[in-house]
Amino acid sequence: MRAYDLIAKKKAGDELNSKEIKFLIDGYMKGQISDYQMSAFLMAVCFQGMSQEETFNLTSAMMNSGVVLDLGFIPAAKIDKHSTGGVGDKISLILAPLAATAGICVPMISGRSLGHTGGTLDKLESIEGFSTDLSTENFIHQLKEIGVAIMGQSDEIAPADKRIYALRDVTFTMDSIPLIIASILSKKLAEGAEGYVFDVKVGKGSFIKSLEEARVLAFQLVNICQRMGKKAVSLITSMDQPLGYTIGNSIEVIEAIEILKGKGAKDVLELSLTLSAEMLFMSQIVESRDAAVKLLKEKIKNGEALERFKQLIQHQKGNPEVINDYSLLPTPKSRYPVLSPSTGYINQIDAFQLAMVVSQLGAAREKADSPINHAVGIVLRKKVGEFTLRGEPLMELLIDDPSPPLKNLKNQVLEALEFSEEEPESKTLIIERIGAG
Amino acid sequence: MRAYDLIAKKKAGDELNSKEIKFLIDGYMKGQISDYQMSAFLMAVCFQGMSQEETFNLTSAMMNSGVVLDLGFIPAAKIDKHSTGGVGDKISLILAPLAATAGICVPMISGRSLGHTGGTLDKLESIEGFSTDLSTENFIHQLKEIGVAIMGQSDEIAPADKRIYALRDVTFTMDSIPLIIASILSKKLAEGAEGYVFDVKVGKGSFIKSLEEARVLAFQLVNICQRMGKKAVSLITSMDQPLGYTIGNSIEVIEAIEILKGKGAKDVLELSLTLSAEMLFMSQIVESRDAAVKLLKEKIKNGEALERFKQLIQHQKGNPEVINDYSLLPTPKSRYPVLSPSTGYINQIDAFQLAMVVSQLGAAREKADSPINHAVGIVLRKKVGEFTLRGEPLMELLIDDPSPPLKNLKNQVLEALEFSEEEPESKTLIIERIGAG
Repeated sequence: MRAYDLIAKKKAGDELNSKEIKFLIDGYMKGQISDYQMSAFLMAVCFQGMSQEETFNLTSAMMNSGVVLDLGFIPAAKIDKHSTGGVGDKISLILAPLAATAGICVPMISGRSLGHTGGTLDKLESIEGFSTDLSTENFIHQLKEIGVAIMGQSDEIAPADKRIYALRDVTFTMDSIPLIIASILSKKLAEGAEGYVFDVKVGKGSFIKSLEEARVLAFQLVNICQRMGKKAVSLITSMDQPLGYTIGNSIEVIEAIEILKGKGAKDVLELSLTLSAEMLFMSQIVESRDAAVKLLKEKIKNGEALERFKQLIQHQKGNPEVINDYSLLPTPKSRYPVLSPSTGYINQIDAFQLAMVVSQLGAAREKADSPINHAVGIVLRKKVGEFTLRGEPLMELLIDDPSPPLKNLKNQVLEALEFSEEEPESKTLIIERIGAG
Repeated sequence: MRAYDLIAKKKAGDELNSKEIKFLIDGYMKGQISDYQMSAFLMAVCFQGMSQEETFNLTSAMMNSGVVLDLGFIPAAKIDKHSTGGVGDKISLILAPLAATAGICVPMISGRSLGHTGGTLDKLESIEGFSTDLSTENFIHQLKEIGVAIMGQSDEIAPADKRIYALRDVTFTMDSIPLIIASILSKKLAEGAEGYVFDVKVGKGSFIKSLEEARVLAFQLVNICQRMGKKAVSLITSMDQPLGYTIGNSIEVIEAIEILKGKGAKDVLELSLTLSAEMLFMSQIVESRDAAVKLLKEKIKNGEALERFKQLIQHQKGNPEVINDYSLLPTPKSRYPVLSPSTGYINQIDAFQLAMVVSQLGAAREKADSPINHAVGIVLRKKVGEFTLRGEPLMELLIDDPSPPLKNLKNQVLEALEFSEEEPESKTLIIERIGAG
């Protein structure tokens, strides 16, 4: 078998069998297949796609390039959540400790900011001392202790994904559904959970723009998990306007803590509860999703969820005092209000456009190893459907040095907004549910 | 400008401008763009193609990655021929010295065997001592002396083509018309000739299977040459059965010498005369192509063409005695006749199928630096349209050690043949002519 022939086969649109896919991944990891052959193969996949069978085999080969955790000795149901990436998406920070309080074990291997979307690890690292770089041993130990741990992809977990991901990132081969699925699942399935809830984002602030595409991704994520013997469900959720009122790192941590304190944005709470409820329902701790929501609300109300988040911070060497004192988080040099140029209802807030501004402020990476600024971001004062008077503050820009010219930034954020005289119809946050049960 | 964005642009099917293409080629040669980015780009080109403008700019950027010879000080018209590659194609060995005797200067940078097709350089190197590794200085000196020189692509000539070609060869990105054109022309145009005659092969023994594709290639070769300020014409010629009666290296040299002696295969003579006549007509040495053919036939008859080939061998350090003593060429250990299984007319001889057998015998390369066997090959005793009795010899296999099992080889060559009871219609060798004049 030669990589050359497998590139040829995929280029012609033919299906590769499991042995051929394993040969490619194993050969690549052993250095027998070069980066340039792999990138040619990946580009051919972008054009020709992959069948479900191929995607399953690719996921499996990539997962097996590293350690696959066995959490069987933990008696609780082990369920994780994964989001395909959005703007203002701080759900994991809320959901992980919250679901754990209901008796679920949440082994979460998470990611960093990518393109315009934020990353859970970056947000958590706003907290002084917080370490996402756990050893497998510590990860497992923490799960036993408090039922929740959030770490980055170590060298032991799906190293083939790590290398292929880096290669895709520089060869413009990111936007292929089978490659995205194999990347997500190869590391997620290595966690050793028995069930997965997927939050598939669709809209302006997601890299998935159409419902059609979102459905394909949602269905295939579930399908491949099930073929791997796992439980799985996908929710397709709206990512047109940012989630919640904040985009950034520190400020998203604050917003997450506010939710855990029983306050904060309605949409963030709704999505956190819905996704956590799916996890509880999947684990059969509750009889229905409604019962799960009730239980979860109680866990927020009685302070258990916030307490578990505090324990999570403590276990991962962060300063838990941030929960009571937000000034312990990195704060920006200055805050600039952006005032409304019109009177009327806000009809649209383009999440992608705002994310690009936040990225320019320094909250996102240009390269995999660039530092990021945890203090900067945007705080929204109004969201879609709300009424504003001309001159009222619409949002605040949280700015640090060095910053792009303020006038440019203000113009850019205003371009993200649309106004209307009539109150816009309210849009559904949770669009579709794909999966059994 | 970033390679990443240019890959994205081509992947989306958009056109790159001249600056962008120059950036890619220059950056690649300077090591600022990696092999894996280039291979992703090449694969995207395979799917999305390139406009004529892009192909022109790619050719230009690749040509300018090295030295472009200036042969202006040679008073004779400088015209070269290029074939897209066939089976049994020994035309260059005949045409180069022949056209030179008519007063043309033939500066020929030629190639080696590639896939199933043979290479002029490999054939010439069957001659003891023959060097195709000329310095630019020696190449020019020889052109001044005898009006003909044949050399390989040196490191000075289109080095970008050399690197990209090697990359395409291992990433299955060979079969793209714009990449093929840029590869051919970037080195050919660096020769400094003022006119080019292209032999675009179509049929079973060519990598171009359809007349449609051949026309696109033929037209674009002419078009880009003309945009570069060169004269150009393309002939589309049939490559269904092998050209002449021999496939290999030594035996093709022998067949070429036989033609120069006024003997040998009708089709080889016809194609040699037709292509050479185009060169003469292009240089305005003659008033018509018919007059050119007449002049060229005279040059064969009076021995001048053979004498020029002898001079070519002498100048390139080969042993010119091969012309009179073919036993000085590498000879195979054994010759096995393949007898006809049927009585009837030969309806088809699949050039590709025979080339694959010759390749297995050792006459073609597996890798760019593999050695090849100059002695082995196939000698046909009959060609398409000829009548054979059952048991008559159809061809001979020229075999050396180590050899694949003889029975397999015989079966394979017989599979290349088709017989019919009725005499097949004779097919045209020269199908179409594309170009001015």
